[in-house]
This record gives sequence, C-alpha cells and structure tokens, in this order.
Amino acid sequence: MLEITFLGTGSGIPSRRRNHPAISLRYEDESFLWDCGEGTQRQLTLAKINFMHIKRIFITHWHADHWAGLIGLLQTMNLEKKKDPLYIYAPEAERFVSDIMDLGYWGPRFQIIPVNVPFEGDEETVVYKTKEFAIKSIPVNHTVPAVAYCFKERDVMNVDIKKAGKHGLRQGPLIGKLKKRGSIEFKGKKIRLEDVGFVKKGIKVVYSGDTRKCNTLLKISKDADLLIHDATFAEEFKNRMHTGAKDAAKIAKEAKVKKLVLTHLSRRYQDPKPLREEARKVFKNTVLAEDFMKMELKRQ
Amino acid sequence: MLEITFLGTGSGIPSRRRNHPAISLRYEDESFLWDCGEGTQRQLTLAKINFMHIKRIFITHWHADHWAGLIGLLQTMNLEKKKDPLYIYAPEAERFVSDIMDLGYWGPRFQIIPVNVPFEGDEETVVYKTKEFAIKSIPVNHTVPAVAYCFKERDVMNVDIKKAGKHGLRQGPLIGKLKKRGSIEFKGKKIRLEDVGFVKKGIKVVYSGDTRKCNTLLKISKDADLLIHDATFAEEFKNRMHTGAKDAAKIAKEAKVKKLVLTHLSRRYQDPKPLREEARKVFKNTVLAEDFMKMELKRQ
Repeated sequence: MLEITFLGTGSGIPSRRRNHPAISLRYEDESFLWDCGEGTQRQLTLAKINFMHIKRIFITHWHADHWAGLIGLLQTMNLEKKKDPLYIYAPEAERFVSDIMDLGYWGPRFQIIPVNVPFEGDEETVVYKTKEFAIKSIPVNHTVPAVAYCFKERDVMNVDIKKAGKHGLRQGPLIGKLKKRGSIEFKGKKIRLEDVGFVKKGIKVVYSGDTRKCNTLLKISKDADLLIHDATFAEEFKNRMHTGAKDAAKIAKEAKVKKLVLTHLSRRYQDPKPLREEARKVFKNTVLAEDFMKMELKRQ
Repeated sequence: MLEITFLGTGSGIPSRRRNHPAISLRYEDESFLWDCGEGTQRQLTLAKINFMHIKRIFITHWHADHWAGLIGLLQTMNLEKKKDPLYIYAPEAERFVSDIMDLGYWGPRFQIIPVNVPFEGDEETVVYKTKEFAIKSIPVNHTVPAVAYCFKERDVMNVDIKKAGKHGLRQGPLIGKLKKRGSIEFKGKKIRLEDVGFVKKGIKVVYSGDTRKCNTLLKISKDADLLIHDATFAEEFKNRMHTGAKDAAKIAKEAKVKKLVLTHLSRRYQDPKPLREEARKVFKNTVLAEDFMKMELKRQ
C-alpha cells in the first residue's frame, strides 16, 4: 500500500492554509519525499511522520519553494544522529546539494548523496528501483531545468482459478509455487503462469512539479491511478510558467488517469473551489489538494 | 511604542508548538526582525505582520535555525516586487548573505545589503540608529561567531512643572519650546531644560541569541526593561553551547532587568513550566516565550 500525505499545497508564497510544496510517500518500509519546501520538517512533525525514516528526497527543480526545507531537514537529521545515507535526486543535484552543504556553520556526520536526474529530452528515466516499485522521472517544461516524478509499483501476474482448473490445478500450495516461480511441473506437464494468469497492474502515481502544459507529462501519466498536477492559477490567469487548472484536467483526461489532484495553488485563491470546478468541466474526478490530506492507494 | 511579536520560540528542531527563532519588532514606521529561522515568512503571515515593511533583519549567528528562513523571505519579497533595499546585519554578514544570494535559481530585483557586525571583544557597537532609537550588538559566547542585540530608545528630558513654576513658567507653548530646543529666554533669563527637567528613560530590550552564560550579555542587559534570553535547557541538562534557565535568571537578576523572557526552548520540554519555575527561584518576573506572544513596551 502506498500512503501519500500532502505536506504543502501552496506555491511560491505560503498562506495561512497552505505551506510550500512537499509530498510524503510511504510504501512498506520505504519513506520518501517529493519536493521539500521551507517548513517541511515541521509539517512532517505535525503530520506525525518520522523524518528519520526518510532515505530519499526527489526535488523537481531548484526554485526555493520546492527545496528550501532541505537545509533545516538535513541539519535536523544530523542533530538527531542519522546514520544511513540520504539520497537527493534532482536535475543538477550535485551542483545544488553541494551549495546547500556549504551553507552556514554545520558539519554533516552522515552521508548525503546527490543523484543527477536527466532534464533534457522527452524520455522517462528510472532513477530508483526496488523489487516492488520504481521511481521514474521525465523532463517537463518550466523556466528552469525541471522534472516530473512517477511512482510505479511492479505489475504482477495472478492466477485465474478457472483457467487453472482446466489444467486440473486447484487453490493450494501448487498455485502459490506457480505464482512465485512462474512455472511448475504438474502431472508431467509444464504449466506457465502466463497460461493461467492475468496481469494485476501496480499502482501508478505521477507528480508534475512546476510545469507548463506539456507532452512529456502526458506520456508519463498514461493510465496513472493518480495525477498530482501543478494548477497554480485558473485558466484566465495561467501564466508563462505554470499550468492552469483547465489544462491540468485536459492532461488528466487525455492520459486516462483515474483521479486528478490539483496542487501548487496560488495564495490568490483563498477559496480555490473555482479551480476545481473549472477542471471538473473537463475531467470529473478532480479534487483540490489540502495540507495534511492523506490518500492510500492499493493494487486493485 | 515598541511592539514585539515572538514568531518562533523553539530551538534547533521545531515542535508542534514552537517554530524556529524569530522575533518581530515594530516601532513607529520601522519594522525589523531579530533572527529569521525556517518558516518565518509563514509565521509573519499567521501573525498578520506585513513582511513587505521589514527593512532590516538582524541575525545573531549562522546556525540554520536562526537564518534558514531568509531564503524564502527574500525570494517572496522579490516576487512581491519589493523596491526598498533590505539590510541584513550579522557577524560575517557579507560572507553568508553572498552564499544565500547564489542559491538555487533566482535573481533579486531589489538591493540586499549585508552589514558585518563585530563578533570579537566585549564592547557594544551601535549597528543602526535613528533619531528615536539605536540597535546595538555585543559579542556573546557560543560555538560560532555570535552576538546579542539590544533595542534602546532614546532617553528624553521632560519638564518638571513644579521646578518650571519656580522660574514662573507654566504649562503651555513655552514649555513645548523648551523641550524642543533645550533652552529658552524667559523674562530676560536663559532657562535650560536640565535646570527644570528630569530624564525619561527610553525602552531597552535585549535578545541574547544563542549563548553560554556570559559577561557581555550581563553588560548590555543592564537595567533593561526586557531581557529575552536563551534558556534551551533546564539546569541539569545545560550543555556546552547554551545557557540553562537558572543561569539566564542569574543574568536577569544581576543586570537588574525588569522582566525576563525565556526562549529557544528545547523540544524536549513539551511542558516547559519547570524551566520557568527554576528561573523564578532566582528571578521572579520570568515568563516563557510562546509562538505569537505579543508584548507592547512604552516609555514610562
């Protein structure tokens, strides 16, 4: 199960209601962040998420509202005697993480490892992978090098008991063996999982970071369970740096995602419901992100 | 009148209740900060203080909990089209402000002027002065270059109406003229303000920043109306970097201040009342700082 907590859903300037961008993701024993705006360590505390378990932080781009919380979070991890290394993935990660390490008076006593993520072209890159899931990035279209991130759980094959029955197989240890090994010998015949199975798709979640409407985002969002998209402004105010709510909905519709969350909402909108309504005219299953909103996604 | 708002009263690691250090001071049309920990721009918003009016920020030292909020605050001022210059006073201000300016992608469109504050020796320095008040600094004793700041309103002479009466002067325009000019001619005699006046002391407020118990702080705190002092820990936990609550109270007592506020409270103390009680045994008029606590000080 993937647990998503929105830690900050505002944009460049925070408001009473919305902190700067950051999203916590937890999947089994892995805990990571997408972006880390100013104040993220305190938002984690308020959300009762243990920041000492975070091993990987993925920054979409180096505008301060998306990264300034790194400074405090790294130094707090240091004060709390973090031992495991922390990986920071980003476009130009080596350059900017090195600047952050040199700031003010402190000396890290744990490893901080920057990982550069490609920010040119239109291809997906797997930037981190476990047996269970992968984190992929793809360049997007902002005023500075920027990427979107995608969490993709592994697709698995499951056994269709009816199909298996045709081979004389019944629910039991042999079915478990078949799922695990991919094939078994049964009554002198080889039975392969693909002969009696069907694909159970893994969860897919995409986070746009800041971007103008762009095709790479459409590409990486294809059939996602959840698309978390920049919708800083309503259509009438959309500007040269960001996507408007309506265009975010167009992406969601065209990519055939299951659900759209609008985030990075400008502080201009004390009541951002008009953004949601604008998007819903194009894509019905749209919600507004709120600070501390939680979502749990399970493989269907 | 000086209006003080505590924006953050925690220490290195924020808690649900306490953000990182920052204090807002407003005196007539001057608005400034003492320290600017992570999240200060949002604390200002929550406290309904307009950050666009801030012209001067005084940093005590370059540990991140005291300065990391500068990054976001400067960039927000930039987004909001700040025009006036912003002065940042600190030990080694030029070095560290220059590092901050180079971070991430942004280009300031207003002037940011670092002002180095002496951090060696044991003398007070006037770092900023108006007709009405001065901000002074003095080196304190921390693990890195660090200073305390003092707000000192100008002492003024007022007329003692009884004394003035002996010279035949009565309440009226001539008294106003005497106060303004310092002397007047009356019935052929020169009357000087000091002959018929008395001193009305200006408000004095001192903020220690982070420090071990030290004599320079005692010196600059002499007869202050308010001493805001580092009291990270109780006596039993006081460490090599900070003052304990009891020692802060000793300073307050010896300096004969009117009131002591304990701040920079460790997140160890969910209930910090024992710190207050420990201090009150030495210095009775002690209170604990709380986020968003306000104090108004007027010349008596």
